[in-house]
Order: sequence, then structure tokens, then C-alpha cells
Amino acid sequence: MELNIVQAAQRLFCADDILLLAHRSPDGDTIGSCFALYHTLHGLGKRVRVECADPFAHKYSYLTDGIFFPEFEPRFIAAVDVADRRLLGEKDTLYPKIDLCIDHHPSNTGYAAESLLDPSQAATAQLCFSLLREMKTPITPQIADCLFTGLSTDTGCFRFSNVTAQTHRVAAELMTLGCDAAGINQRMFECKSRSRILVERLAMESLEYAFEGRCALLCISQKMREQSGACEEDLDGVSSLPRQIEGVWVGVTLSEREGSYKVSLRTDEHIDASAVCGLLDGGGHKRAAGCTLKGDFPAVRASLLETLAPFIQAAEELA
Amino acid sequence: MELNIVQAAQRLFCADDILLLAHRSPDGDTIGSCFALYHTLHGLGKRVRVECADPFAHKYSYLTDGIFFPEFEPRFIAAVDVADRRLLGEKDTLYPKIDLCIDHHPSNTGYAAESLLDPSQAATAQLCFSLLREMKTPITPQIADCLFTGLSTDTGCFRFSNVTAQTHRVAAELMTLGCDAAGINQRMFECKSRSRILVERLAMESLEYAFEGRCALLCISQKMREQSGACEEDLDGVSSLPRQIEGVWVGVTLSEREGSYKVSLRTDEHIDASAVCGLLDGGGHKRAAGCTLKGDFPAVRASLLETLAPFIQAAEELA
Repeated sequence: MELNIVQAAQRLFCADDILLLAHRSPDGDTIGSCFALYHTLHGLGKRVRVECADPFAHKYSYLTDGIFFPEFEPRFIAAVDVADRRLLGEKDTLYPKIDLCIDHHPSNTGYAAESLLDPSQAATAQLCFSLLREMKTPITPQIADCLFTGLSTDTGCFRFSNVTAQTHRVAAELMTLGCDAAGINQRMFECKSRSRILVERLAMESLEYAFEGRCALLCISQKMREQSGACEEDLDGVSSLPRQIEGVWVGVTLSEREGSYKVSLRTDEHIDASAVCGLLDGGGHKRAAGCTLKGDFPAVRASLLETLAPFIQAAEELA
Repeated sequence: MELNIVQAAQRLFCADDILLLAHRSPDGDTIGSCFALYHTLHGLGKRVRVECADPFAHKYSYLTDGIFFPEFEPRFIAAVDVADRRLLGEKDTLYPKIDLCIDHHPSNTGYAAESLLDPSQAATAQLCFSLLREMKTPITPQIADCLFTGLSTDTGCFRFSNVTAQTHRVAAELMTLGCDAAGINQRMFECKSRSRILVERLAMESLEYAFEGRCALLCISQKMREQSGACEEDLDGVSSLPRQIEGVWVGVTLSEREGSYKVSLRTDEHIDASAVCGLLDGGGHKRAAGCTLKGDFPAVRASLLETLAPFIQAAEELA
């Protein structure tokens, strides 16, 4: 059942022994929103903890360090920024019943008993801001940091098309409430590890164009990862690079795995990325989608370009 | 003399045959602010034109295309986002008397007869927004695009430490007024020419570290520029790359000229970039400064590292 914000606030007020679940491969929005709710509910005297199938990356340590969660048998479970229960990873089987889901993904599958959903929000953190305002609980500088992290990371630092006037208004309020906006942005957007720098350079050497520059293709081989020492966190955002090149409609990043390639597609308005990946047993959003293809590089590259060809051709005819 | 915003609005209301001057090497803030004022004053029935010593880059064409300025002998000259009259380039000698300066740079030299200055504003466009509000003239979507461009480019898309709650509030209002925020941000921040991609890759191959990783040094040789076909516009922002590397206090970019190197320093809070460059006959801000050094690469590199050494050592002792 879908709740409005007043009802969702009531549910949280009435709940205790609360487990907050973040999605696997946790990003700034799921972590920031979970911890904002944690501090708020903890401040109301409730027992609360946050769980996630994967560890939180080091760069989020300013949100997660120094917090010790109590042990308890949860009586109320809320999934935060989790579109599909499969994104709970190993927590999915551990907690079969989710009482409340708080999310902004349009693709939310409605798996929870009750849900607070608003796809018009740029981030779940933006929705949580309204929720905390409704709850009339104090938004401390620490909570403002949590929410600003979600807002800023899910919008590419206010760059993406999901940003609305309301997103900027919430950012303004969070700054007034004392969040360290400049520090958070520097940490999230202006700090690259040496491994990242190296793997990005190696990958850029593989850059090639297809379809007269409409497609740019990047490859990250296992050898590049080994040579650079880059981990998954270091590769964050690399797949957005080929799409940024002038004239490119489809940016493709092929990331080598054992005997297969993880394919990431980033497109502009000319190409529906989810339609392309759908033909290759993958899926996603219109501008960002993915799939996994078995085989060596030449085979994967060929089958991908073959699938792309009619999409490019159709777009050329319309352009 | 310094004016307040009411007085500056009065000056503009009373003026006619207005020349608006942008600074040389024009950026989004000087262009956006000039054109916002142009549309406003033109809308009031005045004769107005914008001039700049250098041409406007192609990426700003959505602001500048299709506008034809009238010829007239200016009776009122306003410099917009121009900190020092030397930044007027060839316009400096052409127009010896500047009636009004509208600017946000703390280093403004007060060269104009009257000035509207506010260093607390993240961009001159933010100041112009307040000015237009004071003038009670309509802020059309076109004017909102101009102002948003200034706001977004001068803050690195709301990422830098000059952003305040008020900056976000103005962004929210401009979006409500119909500016194409996502389109502008994509154009400013997510579009790189092929030459830029190539010159960035070549430059990254030159990357080296000094002082146990506290300094990262990048070189852009004339050969790299020729090989990639990169022009000055393509190099925009490259000098911020080495500072982004984890653990780096000083990012140095050496850009080869005829017989010399243009040095760009970007630092974090540990090092005063303007103090370093001051010792090398250059100058700038605390976190971003520059100078020009004569000689070949090994000589320039050596003299720069020698100058940097005591700064790094002092910072290490404090850290």
C-alpha cells in the first residue's frame, strides 16, 4: 500500500527496534538516507540499526565512522532507496518481510507492505528531508550532512536532469542547517585515488569510435585492473566518460570479468539504452543501462555493435 | 565610490546608449551577466551592446547567437565581472572611463567611477539576479539562462566552497523562471571535444609525483597540442586534474609556450598557491595561482620544485 508523507511519519513514530536496510553496492543516497533516519529515530530514544549486504566504501566514513549499532531482534524493517528487494542482496532472504519502503525510483516494484514513493524527487534523501520536516524532529548538522550527501551524489552535484527547483531549495536549507557542503562535494567529486587515475588513463588508451563518431567504446580489461590496482570503488563513474565526448550518442564501457564482459551503456536522447540492453538480456533506464555478454573482446564488441546498428540508423534518419 | 544595490539599479534605469564590457578570456559568468543585463536594458527600450577583447567560445553560442548589437557612441559604460581594468584587454585603452563596475571579486581594484561590489556572492550572475529583482524588470527564461550559466560555471556546478545557501536559492528561482538548467549543465560540464579527450590522455601520460605524493605534476607540451589539435578552449579545466588526486596538496600543470612554460598551481588548504607563485613573479588566489617560467622542461621543473620544497616542508611539520 502506498502511504503519504504524514502516514509514513506516523509509522516511524510508532515503531521501535527498527532495522534500516540500504541497497547492495551502496551509494551516497542509500547510505545518507539510512543514516539521516538512524540519527533521527535514535534521537527519539528508539533502538535502531542500519544493515547492508555490502560494506560502505571508505569515502563515506565521515557518515558511518564512530557509530555502534545495538543488537536486537528487529520489529520494524524499512528499506531505504531500494527499488527492488533483490537489491537487498543477502539481506533479502534474511528479512522476508519489509514493513516500509522509502524510495524515489520510478521502477520500484512495490515489494514492501507499505511504501512512501515519490519518483519526482531527485534523491531519496530529498524525500527524507520532507519526511523529517513532517516529523518535526531536529535536523542537526550531522543529519544535514547525511541528507546533503544523498542529494549531491544522486544528482552528480546538481548537474543531472533529475534536479528540480525543489532540489536546490532543499540544498539551501541543508546548508542553513549547517551541513559541510563544500567538504562533502570535494570528497565525493574532487578526489580520485592514484589507482583510479591510472586505470582511467589505461582505459582511455583503448578508446575507439564507431558509427562515424556516434558511438565511443571503452574497455577495462582485467590486466588494466591488475596493473593499476583499481578496485570496484575506483571504477565508479568511469562508464560515464565515453558519453561525454562531443557528438557521441552512445557511450559503451566493456568491463572484463571471468570469461565475460559487463557492458554499461550511457546514451543521450537519440538512443534508448534500456531497449538496446533489453535485446541482450539486460535492462535499466533510458539513458543508462547494462547487460553481461559472454565471450572474448572481439566477439563481445562485434555482437554489441551489431545490436546497436539499427538503433543508430533509426536515430540518424530522425536527426 | 561604492554603490548599494538600490543606487546601482537607479544608475541603470537612468542610463542610455549603454556599453557592457566583459573581461578578456571571457567565461560563463562575465558572458552570462553581460547578456542578462543586455536583455533587461534592451527590454526597457535602451540602446545597449556587449563588447569583449576576445571572442566568445562556441559553447556559449546559446547565449550569444542571433543577437545583433546596434552601433552607437556609448554614453554609459559598465564593466561586468571585471576585477581589474587590465582584464579589459584592448578595450582598456579604448574606453578610459568606466562609469559602473558590477563585480564579485574580492580583488576588485575599484577602477570604476562607481562600483557595485559584493565578494560574498559566488558569481557576478548571483549579484545581477539581486539587481534585476531590485529593478523589478521581468526575468524571462532567456535571462534566467544567462544568469544560471554564470552561477553554474563560476561554482563548478555548485561544487566549490564559494557556494552558499543563497546560491542554491537563486538557482531554484531561476529554474522556476524557466531556465534550462540540465541543458546548460550538460553543455558546460558533460561535453568534451575529441581533441580535449586526446590532449588529456597525452597529458596524463606525463603525470609524475614529487614530495612523496604531496605534489602531482602534469605537462602539456606543444607537441601534445599539435598531435591532438587542442586549442585553448579545449584545455579549459585541465589544470584542476592533478590536484584531484588523493593525498595531493599541490597540483602543478606546466603548459609549454615559445621558450617558456605557463605554470598553473592548484592547492588545498595546506599550501598558499599565491605565495608560491609570488616568489616566481606570478600571483593569484590562495588555492589557484600561476606564473610564467622561461627555460626548457627540466629547468622549469627543477626551479618550481625548489620553490615548492620549503612550503611542503612547513606544511608537513604542521600536519
